[in-house]
Amino acid sequence: MEPITFVLFGATGDLAKRKIYPALFNLFIDKKLPQAFNLIGLGRKELSDATFRDNVGKSIRDFSRRQAKDPALVDEFLQAFRYSVLDIGRKEDYRKLLLLIEQREEELKLPPNRMFYLSVGPEFFETIAENIQDSGLGSAQGWKRLVIEKPFGHDLQSARQLNRKLSEAFTEDEIFRIDHYLGKPMVQRLESLQQTNPVIQALWNNRHIANVQITAGETVGVEERAGYYDHVGAVRDMFQNHMLQLLMMTAVQLPHKSGSDKVRFKKKMVMEALEPLQKQDVAASVIRAQYTAGIIQGKPAAGYTSEPGIAPSSMNDTFIAAKLHVDDYFWRGVPFYIRTGKRMKEKATRIVIEFKEPALQAQPSTDERTEPNLLVIEMSPSESITLQLNAKDSRNKGEFKPVQIDLHPNKVELPEAYENLIHDALRGDPTFFAHWDEVELAWAWAQPILDAFEENLVPLRYYEAGTYGPAESDALLAQDGFRWWFDSEPEQQNEIEAEEGKQYAYNANH
Amino acid sequence: MEPITFVLFGATGDLAKRKIYPALFNLFIDKKLPQAFNLIGLGRKELSDATFRDNVGKSIRDFSRRQAKDPALVDEFLQAFRYSVLDIGRKEDYRKLLLLIEQREEELKLPPNRMFYLSVGPEFFETIAENIQDSGLGSAQGWKRLVIEKPFGHDLQSARQLNRKLSEAFTEDEIFRIDHYLGKPMVQRLESLQQTNPVIQALWNNRHIANVQITAGETVGVEERAGYYDHVGAVRDMFQNHMLQLLMMTAVQLPHKSGSDKVRFKKKMVMEALEPLQKQDVAASVIRAQYTAGIIQGKPAAGYTSEPGIAPSSMNDTFIAAKLHVDDYFWRGVPFYIRTGKRMKEKATRIVIEFKEPALQAQPSTDERTEPNLLVIEMSPSESITLQLNAKDSRNKGEFKPVQIDLHPNKVELPEAYENLIHDALRGDPTFFAHWDEVELAWAWAQPILDAFEENLVPLRYYEAGTYGPAESDALLAQDGFRWWFDSEPEQQNEIEAEEGKQYAYNANH
Repeated sequence: MEPITFVLFGATGDLAKRKIYPALFNLFIDKKLPQAFNLIGLGRKELSDATFRDNVGKSIRDFSRRQAKDPALVDEFLQAFRYSVLDIGRKEDYRKLLLLIEQREEELKLPPNRMFYLSVGPEFFETIAENIQDSGLGSAQGWKRLVIEKPFGHDLQSARQLNRKLSEAFTEDEIFRIDHYLGKPMVQRLESLQQTNPVIQALWNNRHIANVQITAGETVGVEERAGYYDHVGAVRDMFQNHMLQLLMMTAVQLPHKSGSDKVRFKKKMVMEALEPLQKQDVAASVIRAQYTAGIIQGKPAAGYTSEPGIAPSSMNDTFIAAKLHVDDYFWRGVPFYIRTGKRMKEKATRIVIEFKEPALQAQPSTDERTEPNLLVIEMSPSESITLQLNAKDSRNKGEFKPVQIDLHPNKVELPEAYENLIHDALRGDPTFFAHWDEVELAWAWAQPILDAFEENLVPLRYYEAGTYGPAESDALLAQDGFRWWFDSEPEQQNEIEAEEGKQYAYNANH
Repeated sequence: MEPITFVLFGATGDLAKRKIYPALFNLFIDKKLPQAFNLIGLGRKELSDATFRDNVGKSIRDFSRRQAKDPALVDEFLQAFRYSVLDIGRKEDYRKLLLLIEQREEELKLPPNRMFYLSVGPEFFETIAENIQDSGLGSAQGWKRLVIEKPFGHDLQSARQLNRKLSEAFTEDEIFRIDHYLGKPMVQRLESLQQTNPVIQALWNNRHIANVQITAGETVGVEERAGYYDHVGAVRDMFQNHMLQLLMMTAVQLPHKSGSDKVRFKKKMVMEALEPLQKQDVAASVIRAQYTAGIIQGKPAAGYTSEPGIAPSSMNDTFIAAKLHVDDYFWRGVPFYIRTGKRMKEKATRIVIEFKEPALQAQPSTDERTEPNLLVIEMSPSESITLQLNAKDSRNKGEFKPVQIDLHPNKVELPEAYENLIHDALRGDPTFFAHWDEVELAWAWAQPILDAFEENLVPLRYYEAGTYGPAESDALLAQDGFRWWFDSEPEQQNEIEAEEGKQYAYNANH
């Protein structure tokens, strides 16, 4: 790996403490940092290098997934850390930064390879990029990279404008847009599972797949992000980025050993094939909803409009469910159901691929009930990829029951999304970053939804906190003869259904 | 289950002791015997009922797979057992037997449902069937069944003659031909795995499968069966029956919930589609071989012609490998490689289904080596069904390694083949028995091989005891670009190959 200077904007911020430093430390332990590694933290506050290192050390102790936190190792790691105060809008601070970087590069005999990681609010992206450009920080001698994290704009127009500005300082190849869902180990494994296994590839199309379900449910509400969230809603916060990225990663058809160009080209093809919605038709395939007061895990939870910082008249979406179609050779006729929401019954991010029954089972018998075959990718809170097949009960010949087969039986502690992504950015591998084409197409696709919500063309539904969303979300699948997999049954239903509930709850627990 | 009288010919024989009594006892424990169950053992020796029961009790203690051998339970089980002396050729013994059966049926208030289990040499089948018929034992009031075990004839002609004779006393529906390979739990699971899982069904054809390998290797030689075996050889002893049955069970395309009629109809279709060999072409696709002296598991083993009871000039086949084609819509172009032999390196009965590489991987890269996907059915000595996929190494991004996925993770003690088969015969379910059509087609298919061997049109090859057969067996696959999976490498090869050997040896151990 080439030597590098890691320039971190927002070095005293929360994301840096919780994610970036622990990730870097874990990469250090795994010997996945460049031999010559040099980090310069930037923040508004005046801090000595020593205090900065103390703070970083504390964040590692608090948030690193590693149990072994040998102080000597942490000290060795921290030797690469320097701090410099920087006011994002002050041009001379960038010139000072350049001097510091050049001094470090000389001390360490590093080529001027610089990675600028913007762990700051999106409102600062343009200013920083411009100042990097103007100050000469993006040296022509080495390479430069810009790492940013969503939101990339607030709608199609603002996203395009942001990108235009960034493009003045960085080429597309130099921009690494983090969508941390793409860094999740199970998402990356899904891709390699398909790439390297012909038996999985063979099944990856509308001949064998009945539908795809992508769920990202949270139990939390808006918490301290109320002001921001009320302005954004579920479509912008989750759907336009994370959920559409998961859809792309699921629908993409990858031949063996695809390089990042191929992966991104194919993801773009998926987005281009995504059947566009017209504003006036959004209501037919998109459910917009907001949570009301309810009970989560035995505790009462306030309704959205009673949350501190939310206007009582807010019509913001805290839940969205949608039915999408990828109209290409592989996926025509396969509905993709996507839902995401806050204050749902359980925290769960998963993709479920439901396979079709074989053609010959036109009339499935009731006495020997078998379940559909499923491929289940659990991303959070647990991580697994399982295939659900039907197996004969060994003791009870003739009875079938679903069995879950773990497709990744070698359990080891998995790296976190940020470790994967920072490592890739350091290596310059853009495979698991969002390309501008994807971002733009995703905004373009989502824009009619935003417009329809804005103009109130889609009725706002309500769901109790602690449920799986409004009844309309279930109806969206029911009208096609499907149901959301692994939702546990509400308790007031009758016993037989409660039994089934146990079944699914069990399935969800592997 | 209907009440039944189980009439066992050969009640003092070895098969009865080792297999039938333990199987019946295990069915008894599992409550899988008819409530009203009644067994009459027949043998040439004079035995009292008490001695007979003692002997049966001993065989259960010696051979039952169950640890729990509660004497009270054994006693309860043995109450159903009676013994009667019978000379197979003496008509009056059958009349005596009829009286005994009728007396028992009256005592126990049983309808005259009688199952005749012929655990005797095949030379007695016709006589017994005729005498059952003549004596009135096959009562018109209840039902009757005949259970026999291979060999069913010595060639096509003798098989047809035997069947004609049996048909005079029993209809095809009444004849249960045991091929104990069909009773093996993994064979039965293979069938249900395919039947109930669309993802498996989808892969079950020449679009996705590169080749099928069926191996039944033994480490033993001819032992005490020398005289018989030298007359029979591997084709008759293993290939015409067990191996072709495994081929049928693998190649059969079964829709959901196929009844026994459907299963047998489809198996017959496979046999009919099996590309016939002409006598003069046998040598091109069949390897005939005999073992010479060698070393098995560190111990010297004699060559075949030095075994006691074998003529020094014998040209009998102790090994056969063949390449077959099922010329139907599903399997055209997929070679089925079958081999079976004595004194091989390891005892292993397995089916390996090797999947094709995806079309796009025309030139697989060497730096990221992946193995083909495999579905492996291990029948003996271990039992499992595993799917071998490629997975990314969690710690070493970018490296792939094969992982074995157990498709039947719920390990419980499995019933033995004879338990499954006797239970099916008691229930009258013929699914896993060999239908006459299959037997006849198998003989008809094998006859040119027998003729070619007889006329010495196929060269007799030799292999050292303790190997995987002659080099020609490996060449049979190599000429198509394949190799036998899971053969461990010979020790004299170089280190790299030895490493690979470990890999495969590991694979074979699950």
